[in-house]
Amino acid sequence: MRCPVTAASSAGPVGSDGDVLAEATQFLEALHAERQLPGLAARLAEVREEVALTGSYRHTREELVYGAKVAWRQSARCVGRVRWAGLRVRDRRHVTTAAGIAQELSAHLAAGDNGGRIQSVITVFAPDRPGVGPRARIWNDQLIRYCGHVCADGGVLGDPAQVAMVRAARRLGWRPPPVPGRFDLLPWVIETAHESPSVWEVPRELVREVALSHPDHEWFADLMLRWHALPVISNMRLRIGGVDYSCAPFNGHYLGDEIGTRNMGDRERYDQLPVVAAGLGLDTSREDTLWREHAALVLNQAVLHSFRVAGVRVSDPHTESELFMKFCAQEERAGRPVHGDWSWLNGSVGWAALHAVHHRYYDTRVPNPNLWQTDRVYD
Amino acid sequence: MRCPVTAASSAGPVGSDGDVLAEATQFLEALHAERQLPGLAARLAEVREEVALTGSYRHTREELVYGAKVAWRQSARCVGRVRWAGLRVRDRRHVTTAAGIAQELSAHLAAGDNGGRIQSVITVFAPDRPGVGPRARIWNDQLIRYCGHVCADGGVLGDPAQVAMVRAARRLGWRPPPVPGRFDLLPWVIETAHESPSVWEVPRELVREVALSHPDHEWFADLMLRWHALPVISNMRLRIGGVDYSCAPFNGHYLGDEIGTRNMGDRERYDQLPVVAAGLGLDTSREDTLWREHAALVLNQAVLHSFRVAGVRVSDPHTESELFMKFCAQEERAGRPVHGDWSWLNGSVGWAALHAVHHRYYDTRVPNPNLWQTDRVYD
Ligand code: HEM
Ligand code: HEM
Repeated sequence: MRCPVTAASSAGPVGSDGDVLAEATQFLEALHAERQLPGLAARLAEVREEVALTGSYRHTREELVYGAKVAWRQSARCVGRVRWAGLRVRDRRHVTTAAGIAQELSAHLAAGDNGGRIQSVITVFAPDRPGVGPRARIWNDQLIRYCGHVCADGGVLGDPAQVAMVRAARRLGWRPPPVPGRFDLLPWVIETAHESPSVWEVPRELVREVALSHPDHEWFADLMLRWHALPVISNMRLRIGGVDYSCAPFNGHYLGDEIGTRNMGDRERYDQLPVVAAGLGLDTSREDTLWREHAALVLNQAVLHSFRVAGVRVSDPHTESELFMKFCAQEERAGRPVHGDWSWLNGSVGWAALHAVHHRYYDTRVPNPNLWQTDRVYD
Repeated sequence: MRCPVTAASSAGPVGSDGDVLAEATQFLEALHAERQLPGLAARLAEVREEVALTGSYRHTREELVYGAKVAWRQSARCVGRVRWAGLRVRDRRHVTTAAGIAQELSAHLAAGDNGGRIQSVITVFAPDRPGVGPRARIWNDQLIRYCGHVCADGGVLGDPAQVAMVRAARRLGWRPPPVPGRFDLLPWVIETAHESPSVWEVPRELVREVALSHPDHEWFADLMLRWHALPVISNMRLRIGGVDYSCAPFNGHYLGDEIGTRNMGDRERYDQLPVVAAGLGLDTSREDTLWREHAALVLNQAVLHSFRVAGVRVSDPHTESELFMKFCAQEERAGRPVHGDWSWLNGSVGWAALHAVHHRYYDTRVPNPNLWQTDRVYD
């Protein structure tokens, strides 16, 4: 779960505005040291020359693969990093048209899906042009997402988080299905440096979905809830040794509570806690029955159960947290610092919809007067 | 729930080592402005003189009361602050002997308990001596806590968090009950500047306890679990306008998950999740049944139910989070910044025992290579 305060305060570099050569040097030194590669001096001389001429430099395939893996390994908010070395890196730097990109996104879906045994994949398109900006951008935040349709009464059918994206696609001429539903696939919007944004339907047959059912509650299936198997983040920039790749979608597999708690449970998403509570016959007249937590638990159980039965890889928070501890131990053994953002790494199944979760404007200075922990007196 | 990273990084002032006069001035100005009190200049002159002579100054009763309330109002980790103005401040600065303090602690228990309708109370003993240190310290972290007895097999009967405190009390000659139990009251250890530490039994009749039962599960009562009604923090230092009060225990009432999730559920506390799961007949052979969350839910329901039935004030996380949002709105209307520590303010019922919760050694710098959120392209 994300702490907005930490998120806001640890703003990262956006755009290659730093000292490209310094960052490149640091990166290449780390790569050569970690992989015990020869030829560092020669490669540095080459890069120095290229940066002097063009303001940037081209990564070798090996540098790209290593850089992408290490970017994952160092993602402070990701609990799934024990798998970093197994990332499959698809080098598609030569693909620069919207049509070409759309085709590669389809190929990415197939590679990531891997028949349900989800494989971690990143597809890296052409790097940003130094001082100019991205050569391509995908407008979607994930490659597979469901539409949010605003209804006549102001309510939203589908995913409220995607209302703005639906609006953006419509402005580009896209038309939603004639009979809008709760789980309509959003199209991709792809923009390149030489083409204006264009809309691309996602090939339906490449999108694996899981219908949600619960092992102990038959009625649960009647809620007709579902989710897609593959989370492909498409709005993050990969930065390697001073070079930015603004178009580099990647996927892992799901952690159950991303679906069960956040996507299904959050008030400003599918808001299913009251619906599930009604199915369970819970007393929702008072908060202290903890009906929200009870409904969130059942939703999460349904997600894990349904994915498992469907043969789709998914993680539960306990197993994942334990694996993350293994990752930390590995990193420490390798003498590397573990980058981490505590509140993101400790998301929770039961963390349903507390009001204060969404409040972020706190003053974090230590005030006066104050109360503060004293040192323990005894051993 | 606490984020150890934030906790570590926002270390507060410990001991009045700062500029007493500057802090006093800032405090008195704030008090006079907020309460629209006259006589600021005269009071500042008085304090200046006193600080010059003695290195510190004596708060008026009004300053002490206001200072304690504001210290609560600004406690970044406290979700219960909407009640700050109702804090009852017991001025016991004249009490400096261990016997006198023990007597006042008993009086505090009675005042806080308030027949089960828990009242927020702080008892303020003599301030620290400038440059020397506390005039009195209570070794206990809370005034009511249960012993942790180490058994022959190395296991712990009672609260493992209090094993060291039991050891400390024993070293001072205290003897635990002849037949040790899971809920034996810890004695107080009180140390003053002129007396060595002494042990005081807590008057049993002042300790209200609630036996835990569950509305839907009769067997739950057979677990013989219980908890005390009153959380009185006794290891925090109150600092007001440059003056430290290291002996100033305070209480609010409980938020259910402090008992149900943390005290009862944590592996290194009473570790009751496996026990409750057994009672519920859950499948604990695999993590993805979410049996831990299920057991934590039932424990939390039992706490809220039992306190309510016993007529003891307790809060549930949703109501409390909503009240906290009211507090934020109030503070913003009053033009005051809200001090807050996001991860503490968003504790959770279901947050049972993730491994990574206890890991704190993260590097929070932004690393290279990295993955970072891009700006949204559309509106
Ligand atoms: C293999 C299985 C994976 C699991 C189980 C996993 C798990 C997670 C989870 C639970 C989050 C928090 C998401 C949220 O609360 O919104 C997260 C965030 C993140 N993950 Fe992973 N992840 C996996 C693979 C990957 C891969 C392959 C990459 C990159 C190559 C990656 C990079 C990130 C990044 C950058 C974030 C932060 C996202 C943000 O700031 O919004 N993860 N991961
Ligand atoms: C009236 C009802 C109250 C409620 C429901 C409440 C709730 C809470 C909760 C849930 C925590 C986090 C505890 C943890 O996770 O360990 C907390 C922390 C805290 N509260 Fe309150 N509180 C109340 C009253 C008070 C009062 C009267 C004071 C002081 C006058 C106070 C000062 C603090 C402080 C200083 C902390 C941080 C403790 C630390 O750093 O370990 N609270 N409160």
